[in-house]
Amino acid sequence: MDIPFVKGHGTENDFVLVPDANGRLDLSAEQIAFLCNRRAGIGGDGVIRVVRTDAADDPAAVAARGEATWFMDYRNSDGSLSEMCGNGVRVLGLYLATHADVDIRKPLPVATRAGIKTLSFNRDLITVDMGSPTVKEATWVRVGERRWDARNVDMGNPHAVTFVESLDDAGSLLESPDFDAVIYPDGVNVEFVRRVGERHVEMRVRERGSGETRSCGTGACAVMVATALADEALRGTTYLVDLPGGRLEIVWTEDDRILMTGPAVLVAEGLVSL
Amino acid sequence: MDIPFVKGHGTENDFVLVPDANGRLDLSAEQIAFLCNRRAGIGGDGVIRVVRTDAADDPAAVAARGEATWFMDYRNSDGSLSEMCGNGVRVLGLYLATHADVDIRKPLPVATRAGIKTLSFNRDLITVDMGSPTVKEATWVRVGERRWDARNVDMGNPHAVTFVESLDDAGSLLESPDFDAVIYPDGVNVEFVRRVGERHVEMRVRERGSGETRSCGTGACAVMVATALADEALRGTTYLVDLPGGRLEIVWTEDDRILMTGPAVLVAEGLVSL
Repeated sequence: MDIPFVKGHGTENDFVLVPDANGRLDLSAEQIAFLCNRRAGIGGDGVIRVVRTDAADDPAAVAARGEATWFMDYRNSDGSLSEMCGNGVRVLGLYLATHADVDIRKPLPVATRAGIKTLSFNRDLITVDMGSPTVKEATWVRVGERRWDARNVDMGNPHAVTFVESLDDAGSLLESPDFDAVIYPDGVNVEFVRRVGERHVEMRVRERGSGETRSCGTGACAVMVATALADEALRGTTYLVDLPGGRLEIVWTEDDRILMTGPAVLVAEGLVSL
Repeated sequence: MDIPFVKGHGTENDFVLVPDANGRLDLSAEQIAFLCNRRAGIGGDGVIRVVRTDAADDPAAVAARGEATWFMDYRNSDGSLSEMCGNGVRVLGLYLATHADVDIRKPLPVATRAGIKTLSFNRDLITVDMGSPTVKEATWVRVGERRWDARNVDMGNPHAVTFVESLDDAGSLLESPDFDAVIYPDGVNVEFVRRVGERHVEMRVRERGSGETRSCGTGACAVMVATALADEALRGTTYLVDLPGGRLEIVWTEDDRILMTGPAVLVAEGLVSL
């Protein structure tokens, strides 16, 4: 069976998009794994099936009918369901802006398993309302004999944000950092952050279940929250967050929402043989 | 600029094919690197531009005019030129069999920078005449305190073939094996081989410049030659060679040629934005 696909990425977090407006495809875990396989398939960090909410039977899509036309059916590279992906939803937004009947002068609501996310388009950049952060008790990160204080920030998923003087050895530090398994029973995303200038940081991230990645949208948001708290910054201040895969601009609004702005790129499209 | 592409692989050695029958494309090193980039591009071990010999200005293509219709313009993922690739030429063969006016009941000559290679099609498998091996002086491979005798086989590129009892620790052994820099001044592909049964081996390979890979066609041929010599096997005996990415069947003919048979898969095709 040949099905259409689009490959795209946001700050080098990459996805195989499967256009399926009318909800005709039921992709198995094996098919998802094949699409994400970087040598035997196309390759990607995950698959985003693009389906209309009125043609999807996922409860999150059903609940969003009337409020959002499109549903982001996000699957991890092993085929398991995932709630949302901040980089992925921008790529999905660019796909809709270029391939669907979407008016990009208006905010675009997209249904996800983490609720409706609203996208705004501004030239080449797309802003995602990532919702409200939850700042929790202080914690730590440890590698061998070294130990750092860390900020525990929840963006729907858990983060341990750690400020360091240098990221030169971040690659080896992120190989298997220890964390407090009592407060993070399901694991944690670990971020090492270096200050580059005023309202400007550089980070590297280890995602639970994946190892170090080129970019993590929720990780960048957690880093911005931890930095803004340390700075006692006014709400509404924009921070630049540099990741190995590119730059994100993040603002924490007066009404306690995190707005993440970044690029999206559609690289290729065609047919893939399943 | 949007250009057509096909993604395919042979035993998980994967390629971005760029159909360019009339030789209109002049891909820069940056464009090749982008096509091979697994996150920001499509992803592949290399790029194969598929061009008619009479439309290509490479000396190897010019020399082959009249004898071969198609030229394999193979480029490494960094954009540098490469002579040939045994897995890649099968994928190119399958592309021609399915997309060009090629009679697969007859042997198909393909021009490469390593001369004309002849392909034969048999159901799902494609056989490539890889030419004659050159067996050289004995050598060795060393990892830390451990040292193995090795067979020095040249298949157009150099190999050090090493027999071991187990491949369980091959991953770490192949991280940075030492070799004789006098006989391999430009580096060497290192193969660790385990006997599975009669005329059946399993191997892992480190390609110079790349590290461990899922498959290496010339490496599998060198392994077959070393094994057949150790067995004092009759010419014409077929060996099975299992690699992490799949199985190849290899025979050393009476007239001193290595015929390698294996699968080729076309995964996806479409347009890519350069």
